[in-house]
Amino acid sequence: MQQKSNISNSVIRRLPRYYRFLGELLKTGITKISSRELSEKMRLTASQIRQDLNCFGGFGQQGYGYNVAELRREIAHILGLDNMRKIILIGAGNLGRAITMHVDFQKYGYELIGIFDSNIAMEGIEIAGISILHTNRLKAFCEENRPQMAVLCIPRSGAKDAVMSLMSYGVKAFWNFSHYDINFDFPEADVENVHLTDSLMTLSYTAKNHAERDSEE
Amino acid sequence: MQQKSNISNSVIRRLPRYYRFLGELLKTGITKISSRELSEKMRLTASQIRQDLNCFGGFGQQGYGYNVAELRREIAHILGLDNMRKIILIGAGNLGRAITMHVDFQKYGYELIGIFDSNIAMEGIEIAGISILHTNRLKAFCEENRPQMAVLCIPRSGAKDAVMSLMSYGVKAFWNFSHYDINFDFPEADVENVHLTDSLMTLSYTAKNHAERDSEE
Repeated sequence: MQQKSNISNSVIRRLPRYYRFLGELLKTGITKISSRELSEKMRLTASQIRQDLNCFGGFGQQGYGYNVAELRREIAHILGLDNMRKIILIGAGNLGRAITMHVDFQKYGYELIGIFDSNIAMEGIEIAGISILHTNRLKAFCEENRPQMAVLCIPRSGAKDAVMSLMSYGVKAFWNFSHYDINFDFPEADVENVHLTDSLMTLSYTAKNHAERDSEE
Repeated sequence: MQQKSNISNSVIRRLPRYYRFLGELLKTGITKISSRELSEKMRLTASQIRQDLNCFGGFGQQGYGYNVAELRREIAHILGLDNMRKIILIGAGNLGRAITMHVDFQKYGYELIGIFDSNIAMEGIEIAGISILHTNRLKAFCEENRPQMAVLCIPRSGAKDAVMSLMSYGVKAFWNFSHYDINFDFPEADVENVHLTDSLMTLSYTAKNHAERDSEE
């Protein structure tokens, strides 16, 4: 499969959606789909779907459609989901615990191998089969187990120091829930920020403007 | 403050970030800031910041900069954060519980007034001071308390039925963690989708391509 270089960020951001969606099709027993059908179900235009998938060398055959399982496998490969990666989680508070229990890391190519918290009272507590370790064990753990990624579920205040330590231990990619702008201080790190409350604020805007529109009508 | 109509989605999506950022400035005692300083700290261009804020009638004064507290208050108003809205949460599993405990709803103009779960064994368990109710109490609760919004933390399978019921009880806006495409069946609903694992997949892509880039150098 010939992959174009310089694929736009917006195409990349749509791939997880294709991946999820194709998985749902497979579950319901659908093995082939045309770009038109895919576009109706995903609420994208058929030409956008063809363009998106063409960025990766094209998968469909004219007049035949896409093989769902094959397309999904290729997208998994493009996203790197078929490469098992070791990940650790920092901060076993409410959010950290929920992510541990709720997110099926394995399904997305991640092996969660350690959970750390700076609260010594939490050491030894087990979440999803993993015992929490105190952060003073982080360095030795990283040297021994070589995780490449970390989920950051700590408050903003401690995040910079935590990232500095993790980077020095070889962790270079972060799934960041901390509201700390990692790339501001560490431009070389790979970062995905999750700002849960940003979407809550956007919903507030949408609902407010919907209500104002209605009252004008 | 004169607000333009037809503000682009990408401007709206940046407003929560401004709001967060200005809050952090206030905490550190900064009361005035120029668009240049703001741009350096937020890693946007100064002209983008001026353009964004001009969409809402402009706030800064030439050669003086922005009054941080005033700008933040105006953004809060634009986003509708100063309008207290009643919200309920459906699905008190790991994720629902974490959101209840982790998200400071009040700070963003929401009053969390009820938590519902279809598991009768959970009824009466208290999270963050709110007792879980069985979903068979949902209709009566909505008639009495008139929530306008719901956080949806249930699996995809039950989501359509849940939304149909909620819409009929007057709930029209959804903070949706369920991986169910609400607007596909209910185009009139206001929806903010949170697909946590999409960002985990994007991180996988970024890290994979970073590694490939490094190995080519």
